[in-house]
Amino acid sequence: MTEEPRPTLEAVAARAGVSRATVSRVVNGDPGVREVLAERVRHAVDELGYVPNHAARSLVTRRHDAVAVVIAEPETRVFADPFFALQLRGISKELTARDVQLVLLLTEGRDDHERVGRYLAGGHVDGALVFSLHLDDPLPAIIRRAGVPTVFGGRPGWPDAAEGERGAPYVDCDNRGGAREAVRHLVGLGRGRVAHITGPLDQISAVDRLDGYRDALTEVDPRLIAEGDFTPAGGERAMRELLARVPELDAVFAANDLSASGALRVLRERGRRVPDDVAVVGFDDMLPVAEQTDPPLTTVRQDIEGMGRLMADMLLRGRGGEGLASGPENVVLPTALVRRASA
Amino acid sequence: MTEEPRPTLEAVAARAGVSRATVSRVVNGDPGVREVLAERVRHAVDELGYVPNHAARSLVTRRHDAVAVVIAEPETRVFADPFFALQLRGISKELTARDVQLVLLLTEGRDDHERVGRYLAGGHVDGALVFSLHLDDPLPAIIRRAGVPTVFGGRPGWPDAAEGERGAPYVDCDNRGGAREAVRHLVGLGRGRVAHITGPLDQISAVDRLDGYRDALTEVDPRLIAEGDFTPAGGERAMRELLARVPELDAVFAANDLSASGALRVLRERGRRVPDDVAVVGFDDMLPVAEQTDPPLTTVRQDIEGMGRLMADMLLRGRGGEGLASGPENVVLPTALVRRASA
Repeated sequence: MTEEPRPTLEAVAARAGVSRATVSRVVNGDPGVREVLAERVRHAVDELGYVPNHAARSLVTRRHDAVAVVIAEPETRVFADPFFALQLRGISKELTARDVQLVLLLTEGRDDHERVGRYLAGGHVDGALVFSLHLDDPLPAIIRRAGVPTVFGGRPGWPDAAEGERGAPYVDCDNRGGAREAVRHLVGLGRGRVAHITGPLDQISAVDRLDGYRDALTEVDPRLIAEGDFTPAGGERAMRELLARVPELDAVFAANDLSASGALRVLRERGRRVPDDVAVVGFDDMLPVAEQTDPPLTTVRQDIEGMGRLMADMLLRGRGGEGLASGPENVVLPTALVRRASA
Repeated sequence: MTEEPRPTLEAVAARAGVSRATVSRVVNGDPGVREVLAERVRHAVDELGYVPNHAARSLVTRRHDAVAVVIAEPETRVFADPFFALQLRGISKELTARDVQLVLLLTEGRDDHERVGRYLAGGHVDGALVFSLHLDDPLPAIIRRAGVPTVFGGRPGWPDAAEGERGAPYVDCDNRGGAREAVRHLVGLGRGRVAHITGPLDQISAVDRLDGYRDALTEVDPRLIAEGDFTPAGGERAMRELLARVPELDAVFAANDLSASGALRVLRERGRRVPDDVAVVGFDDMLPVAEQTDPPLTTVRQDIEGMGRLMADMLLRGRGGEGLASGPENVVLPTALVRRASA
């Protein structure tokens, strides 16, 4: 192992010929040290390669210049779904612009969330950005107990919200409005049997999109709704189910672009022409996915990278003891229908 | 922000009707507390949702139950190349089995490495796993200064190795031997003009594979070597360059599967049949990439996930003050040629 003895404050003091207190003041940026002494200390710091003990210091200042990102999915999912990469891109840009370290806490699954809570509570980060919550997730309670400032990606569906538990700031997009617009577009094209491939219904974003689907229809046929899981494979399964139940369906609104890509594959395999026989609309406008499907996908655009940036910005604005926002401060971003060949 | 006042040690002591010292001893697992008192403390801890201050504790025990992973690439690259996802999968499995948190430190690029060093030095992790080093990288020196146990993925090419600087444990695969076997296979098929698309030559793994290529040939034509960068786009560029220089080439050894996939696209575009006109061999056996190319790719298999596991295992075996390994402990894993249709 490459552990080398770390130079101590004492060693720096001895090298510079000053007291420990003087070294400490210089290292902590205290301006009340004579320049000639400060110069000697900085020189000794450089010579010895001294690194101040931030762990000790952060106990006092409570600043770590680091923010944790927690995605409530197994790491395999985090790396398989480009949605997360895009959100992380926005977060990374925003944090890097402020010289704050992005600390991504990966897990194998929900059993590891207690450990994530311990890390968050352990004084290693200034706050947490948390996304992809599930309704029966122990994570929000664990994070609340950890006592670090948190911003959520997506409106959390607190099981205890009804009991008056206080909220948490979040950034979301208008899932319900976007879905409504997508389905109205399909209805406007004269489609009379619009099916819906949902996301996993233990996630609020999927529930909201389902609500938007219902909003846009005067009558809802439950046989036209099949549950997916936001993956291409889930979209394939749901599409097969829908075709078996209602072979005469003429449109599909999929809860995200990845599900839509799976649905398109099944439709092609079954010889259904898109959009002539079946029109398809997705959600996300995730590039390059939405442009590379065959045919290119009409979809509901949300600014995924922008959501990440905004989450990081909200968290950092509240940082450093300048006083936390007095109540939850939520942002819901608009969506826009992007028309391509599939509908 | 969801910061709630965190219950203090004092509050637990008051609730349990014991001294602060007793709470502290129970929380830290000291067995010298009467069971009836310990029980009262644990009850109060549960009631209040008290979380021990690990930051303070870890200053004493110097254990964080967390390991950092540092990939010396911008986060966009980390999420675009499945190689990293596979290595992280192995690391995640190994760490999770020991209830150690995986802390992935993401950056926008090399300018952020000083900040990564500060985080590592800050007492937040028990060690670091570092991969994808580049030859002129300041990262190894920064990490050495941070003074945390480190295991490298891939043999580091210390610029100061010649000066007797001590080494660091690493896990690698037999890049040179694997490359040699790939090229010998092509020569054995009767191919007389074997080209090589290298990886980025500021990385030791790419240099080693180039050396293996040279080993297998009695005469090396420099016009048959083009530099890639381990990406499909880099493979396309290099393939175009090679075809322009030596139109009569009859085989290509690409330094990884992603480069090979780019090369295959260009060959198809130019109407060259694979393997009839040009045989192609890759490196990695990255699935599903290597199986889904057209035609499926003959390649050199390395156990990427296994390398990740082994790195984590090596780091953790040295952990906890049981004494670090006295010298560098390196592991070089074997490779194996996997024959599919492309050669």
